[in-house]
Amino acid sequence: MNPKKELVIGLAGYGVVGTGFARALHEGRELIRRRTGRDIVIKTVAVKDKNEKFAYPLPEGATLTTSLDDLVNDPAIDVVIELIGGIQVARGLISKALSAGKHVVTANKALLAEDGKELFRIAGEKNLHLGYEASVCGGIPVVQAMSEGLAGNEILSLYGILNGTSNYILSEMSAKGMPFADALKDAQALGFAEADPTLDIEGFDAAHNLVLLIRLAWGVEYPFKNLPVQGISAVRPEDIEFARELGYSIKLIGQARMQDGRLSAGVFPALVHRKLLLSKVVGSYNAVWVKGNAVGSIFLHGRGAGDTPTGSAVLADILSIARDARPNNTGFLEQVPPLADVLDPEEGESSYYFRLMVEDKPGVLRDVAGAMAEYGISIAQAIQKGNDPDVVPLVFMTHEAKAKDVVKAVAHMRASHLLREEPVCYRVLHRG
Amino acid sequence: MNPKKELVIGLAGYGVVGTGFARALHEGRELIRRRTGRDIVIKTVAVKDKNEKFAYPLPEGATLTTSLDDLVNDPAIDVVIELIGGIQVARGLISKALSAGKHVVTANKALLAEDGKELFRIAGEKNLHLGYEASVCGGIPVVQAMSEGLAGNEILSLYGILNGTSNYILSEMSAKGMPFADALKDAQALGFAEADPTLDIEGFDAAHNLVLLIRLAWGVEYPFKNLPVQGISAVRPEDIEFARELGYSIKLIGQARMQDGRLSAGVFPALVHRKLLLSKVVGSYNAVWVKGNAVGSIFLHGRGAGDTPTGSAVLADILSIARDARPNNTGFLEQVPPLADVLDPEEGESSYYFRLMVEDKPGVLRDVAGAMAEYGISIAQAIQKGNDPDVVPLVFMTHEAKAKDVVKAVAHMRASHLLREEPVCYRVLHRG
Repeated sequence: MNPKKELVIGLAGYGVVGTGFARALHEGRELIRRRTGRDIVIKTVAVKDKNEKFAYPLPEGATLTTSLDDLVNDPAIDVVIELIGGIQVARGLISKALSAGKHVVTANKALLAEDGKELFRIAGEKNLHLGYEASVCGGIPVVQAMSEGLAGNEILSLYGILNGTSNYILSEMSAKGMPFADALKDAQALGFAEADPTLDIEGFDAAHNLVLLIRLAWGVEYPFKNLPVQGISAVRPEDIEFARELGYSIKLIGQARMQDGRLSAGVFPALVHRKLLLSKVVGSYNAVWVKGNAVGSIFLHGRGAGDTPTGSAVLADILSIARDARPNNTGFLEQVPPLADVLDPEEGESSYYFRLMVEDKPGVLRDVAGAMAEYGISIAQAIQKGNDPDVVPLVFMTHEAKAKDVVKAVAHMRASHLLREEPVCYRVLHRG
Repeated sequence: MNPKKELVIGLAGYGVVGTGFARALHEGRELIRRRTGRDIVIKTVAVKDKNEKFAYPLPEGATLTTSLDDLVNDPAIDVVIELIGGIQVARGLISKALSAGKHVVTANKALLAEDGKELFRIAGEKNLHLGYEASVCGGIPVVQAMSEGLAGNEILSLYGILNGTSNYILSEMSAKGMPFADALKDAQALGFAEADPTLDIEGFDAAHNLVLLIRLAWGVEYPFKNLPVQGISAVRPEDIEFARELGYSIKLIGQARMQDGRLSAGVFPALVHRKLLLSKVVGSYNAVWVKGNAVGSIFLHGRGAGDTPTGSAVLADILSIARDARPNNTGFLEQVPPLADVLDPEEGESSYYFRLMVEDKPGVLRDVAGAMAEYGISIAQAIQKGNDPDVVPLVFMTHEAKAKDVVKAVAHMRASHLLREEPVCYRVLHRG
């Protein structure tokens, strides 16, 4: 144990997560003493505007500053916690703090996913903690689970609900049959979605989580800009309803799995079979479902965002540092992981859900099934309903098919004028 | 990092978990090198009978012995893995191995729950690892989650499905409407239950898990022999069916929660609301649902037993040792935790499910409700069905009530000759 009794923190950012952390630290102070023998003291809090109203009182004895350099240059500070978000300034702060020999804890998933390499390299070189439990699925202790608890497992697949906002919106659409735009508006009114919700609803936040999870699971770098990402803004209530009839929920899924020795990954809305726990994740929760060669199936569920849940994850990293644990930042010896061996997305295999708007005339299902069969795609189950004299939905699920064959089949159907609207097509997660 | 390249293991026991660990170690050897920079070598395997057929080949180069002392006395061995089970001999082995300065990893939950104190004391004194991830809920990395990932949280409550065998039996009873005895027989035929199933079906194995979880969550000792434990052998298919009608599943629950600053804990069958993920845990899986003051709700789900799932947990501890991590065995500075401040079980509060077999005559519900009301217990919902000319089930759920008041109300009803059979009464877990 470090002979120094106090662990001294410099905290950058005192917004939702910063105040959540301060609260968790204050409420947990007795427990932390029992667990580590040390007091954890926030010495300095750096904010943009000293006159801002904070959601939680400033920690007792803490100095408020507007200069990030006050954290980096203070030799008394052991750990810098970066909760300011954004890329440039945050990267500068973390880089300088590490170079100054300070441990760093951050909740900045965008930075680490898009441009974390150099930071992990410096931390590794200097044998410092670069803690980011709070950067992956908020309060769920999944960074640790992947880098330690399941570290002896070859990970076969990883599916996650990695964004609480979009899951909340899909849950509301599902429970109330409401369209996306209304559910988004409600979520914004309740504070579950930002004024500019792009990052959440278009899948980018989930993609940040996924890139970090891939790094933890396989020790490889999947370049963020190459990751296929599709959001939920086009999901329609009628597809949620058809999915339910078939026994599925529609969820925004981050997927990474090994197929033929290569990594197949992406973020997309998918149908999730009701027998899977993932389908039961409702509201703003996150969940990660991992399959390992030895452990089998592991499912972790909790709050992916929010003040004290994320604060709890920051605190976990701080406790590791207070216990003088050895840094194990990437979970691998290599701090700069090699590039992932990525499967060409066209070769990715999946079952698919289709909703086609077709003319209500005999032989349509036959024609569609014929078009699919031409590309080796077979239909597993279908729903055909006639409630419009003219155009009716033809809904079906396929057996496993390659993405490129699905693309070809859709192009074929388009060309043959079977379709009255653009087809709707989602991947399907089975219970297997 | 330890400069020594190899980590040398002495393995005691080569049964289900021993062979599962050997397999996981072999399959993970490349990964382990990438993660730790070291080779992990099983040098010696101690078994009772050298001529036994093993389910997995002996590790390459390993020596087979029947003497546990061969593990303890070999200075080349860094870690002793204890997978022989039982109390006396296992305790002797672990104690001697620690005294000889070796790290220990064990899957022996009975030993650690009933009599682990002295072992943790020695390990703490000598700054050695006493790893037991495999002792709590098999492959679920819950020891680490409690001692590190959630370590900054005051734990408010902890509910778990902590025994796979009993959950498998209850799932079968529930899916097929079969009586307990038949489901047990099937489970035995499939290898999910032992020839003598007492430990599993009477709740003792779940209770071992619970005592260890309590220690990890609160850093206190709940004496195993004092823990209220009730198994599933008396659970009847009709109660499972009534529970379903009310929107609940019946599960064997290990519970520990803070009530008025005291710990209320026990193992018992309980009704679990269908909106709770715990109610969706089917088959031989385990799950732990924790509420922390900061993190909110965390739910972990996975295999609680089995060869490679448990082997995966053993391997996690071995990787910690190979990484030269600092021991954090109890999660607290104190290696010998103080006694828990236990709530008198009579004061424990819960909702209850009742099935009473009563005469099918007017006013019975009124009389029963009257008897309950006399002890301050109010009824939340009721089902009354008349399908027998004489005796009918009266099923109802109460609002929160103290155990002692429930006992009194039952005694009162018994005395008033309302009941034709012994009443059935289970606790209820709501979605709240």
